[in-house]
Amino acid sequence: MSINHSALKSFIVEVFLCKQFSHEHAEIAANVLLEADLTGIDSHGIARLSGYLRLIDSGRINVKPNFALHVRKKTTGRFDADGGIGLVSAQIAMGHTIEMCHEYGSGWLAIFNSSHYGVGAAHSSLALQHNYIGLSMTNATPLVTPALGKERMLGTNPICISIPGKNGQSFVIDMATSAAANGKLEIAQREGKSIPDGWLISANGETSNNPNDLKEGGFLLPLGSNSDRGYHKGYALGSWVDIFSGVLSGANFGPWVPPFVQFLNPQNEQVGKGIGHFIGCWDMDGFSELNASQNALEIWMNRFKSTIAIDPKNPVMIPGEIEKLTKENRLIYGIPLNDIVIQDIETIATSLQLKSPF
Amino acid sequence: MSINHSALKSFIVEVFLCKQFSHEHAEIAANVLLEADLTGIDSHGIARLSGYLRLIDSGRINVKPNFALHVRKKTTGRFDADGGIGLVSAQIAMGHTIEMCHEYGSGWLAIFNSSHYGVGAAHSSLALQHNYIGLSMTNATPLVTPALGKERMLGTNPICISIPGKNGQSFVIDMATSAAANGKLEIAQREGKSIPDGWLISANGETSNNPNDLKEGGFLLPLGSNSDRGYHKGYALGSWVDIFSGVLSGANFGPWVPPFVQFLNPQNEQVGKGIGHFIGCWDMDGFSELNASQNALEIWMNRFKSTIAIDPKNPVMIPGEIEKLTKENRLIYGIPLNDIVIQDIETIATSLQLKSPF
Repeated sequence: MSINHSALKSFIVEVFLCKQFSHEHAEIAANVLLEADLTGIDSHGIARLSGYLRLIDSGRINVKPNFALHVRKKTTGRFDADGGIGLVSAQIAMGHTIEMCHEYGSGWLAIFNSSHYGVGAAHSSLALQHNYIGLSMTNATPLVTPALGKERMLGTNPICISIPGKNGQSFVIDMATSAAANGKLEIAQREGKSIPDGWLISANGETSNNPNDLKEGGFLLPLGSNSDRGYHKGYALGSWVDIFSGVLSGANFGPWVPPFVQFLNPQNEQVGKGIGHFIGCWDMDGFSELNASQNALEIWMNRFKSTIAIDPKNPVMIPGEIEKLTKENRLIYGIPLNDIVIQDIETIATSLQLKSPF
Repeated sequence: MSINHSALKSFIVEVFLCKQFSHEHAEIAANVLLEADLTGIDSHGIARLSGYLRLIDSGRINVKPNFALHVRKKTTGRFDADGGIGLVSAQIAMGHTIEMCHEYGSGWLAIFNSSHYGVGAAHSSLALQHNYIGLSMTNATPLVTPALGKERMLGTNPICISIPGKNGQSFVIDMATSAAANGKLEIAQREGKSIPDGWLISANGETSNNPNDLKEGGFLLPLGSNSDRGYHKGYALGSWVDIFSGVLSGANFGPWVPPFVQFLNPQNEQVGKGIGHFIGCWDMDGFSELNASQNALEIWMNRFKSTIAIDPKNPVMIPGEIEKLTKENRLIYGIPLNDIVIQDIETIATSLQLKSPF
């Protein structure tokens, strides 16, 4: 079953309005969730709505935040999200870095006292309309162990980069720094399937192919999966994201990051406020002339798409290509939803006395 | 056999002076090579000197470059390395971004018409003395295939981040975006050992444990090693580095990057000039106050070092820790050199009529 994107968006806006969001914030939050569903990052779209509502209802998300911008250098600063939803705080803060970029060619903010910010590319890609290069990263629910360890110390801490190409052919990365994102595990759990070696170790530190082992005290592995394959690098990347998002901003970091998932509770001890993000942008015209860089990027993209494939039926893609094609398709044919998500939406509609979007 | 770092540095300076480098450039180049040897990145130190000399002697490195800085926005610009050695151009350009950072809180340069820049952390870590956070990346000899492909399209394209901690306890990442760096393969080749699954595929796209397969037309794999383990992420990271280093700067990118390794020749067709780097820095005091961020970083480091280890005899480290310990040790006890490198040094000394450093 599929749903038209406008109908889905209207429903999400109404839900946030029911929870006392301002019209502006409800609209922004809905756009970010919808962007995940449109680009095929299904784990981060409407499927997460009930999770946000759980945090709102338990008082862990402030529905009427007073955001505060503290500019400390001409191109850098700190943004207090006042306990608000990350979907909105990251978008508003990104707008401020774009303003800095207009004047100085780059702009950067560390955000604290925030919460889950949804699909990271929705934030970095705000830069694209100005022909700026966007960066966004966030820390997240501690589920990933450092290399050589067996302790939940890092989130899947994504890195997102959006580089504006010609005619909307942009280069977009949005990648977890763990071997597999938690969303992939959730799919395997739901479908009762085993998972490949290298995603997870069990509570006692042993290789596991059972996706349920994560909830049983297990650990996601950093990108690279083991010592032989360089998982100290995935650990390093996740640490970088954690330090930029949490340490620089004054948010929590490492094992203290307040969890989003239902099977974990926040720690009593806190080393900062809420979760943190790091965002910003560079003016693409600030290096070579914009036209020269975009021409070169077009050559880059065409050359990489023509890479000799191991299996010609499975051609080499460029980062962001699948998401772009998915969005084009879903804008026309609607967003496919699975039964669990449909049931979730119906439950939300009933509880808030809203009309079902179906 | 070990060599005192001062003796080694004096020798390297003399070698570059013999090749008509200015005193300033010889000194800078020697410092960058030495930093690799001191921090234990042995593949990028004195062991590479003969490679640089080969490129100098064949006219592929300009020993008397006229560097040119083109500032295009207040915090961004383009740096023409005039065919000079990357060891020097990246250091000089990093100095310019530090100047930008003094005034604006951040600064960024894309460098073109450069050559191999050595150990990337030597450039990003220039920021540390100012309590700035340094970033450096470079494209490199095309040896890595994109995910799903079998073609040499990317270098091992490293990402380096240096974050200043208290009392010199800094957080430093310097990581290839491939599963294994070429240096590790070279060690296996030299020792006649097989390599783990996931580093390399052979010319026909099949898994290989033979390190010699790289020279026989094979390909290094992106970080993640295969589809199950997310090697599209390593490919995405390597692509990001390539676009920032080559596309934004006007250097070559992708398969056109002029190779450093002896077994490959430059392509006749070029899409830019030389190889490219991307460098810059943020003022750590530009987000939270410096003292608050450094206190938080200290908590972060201590907490991560105390991560529960799978094997207590093999404790969890933090990024940059091994390199820091190695440097402390080698400053006192000297830099260990293997027979091949010693022979290399003796050959260079003889050919340039220099006194052997041993």
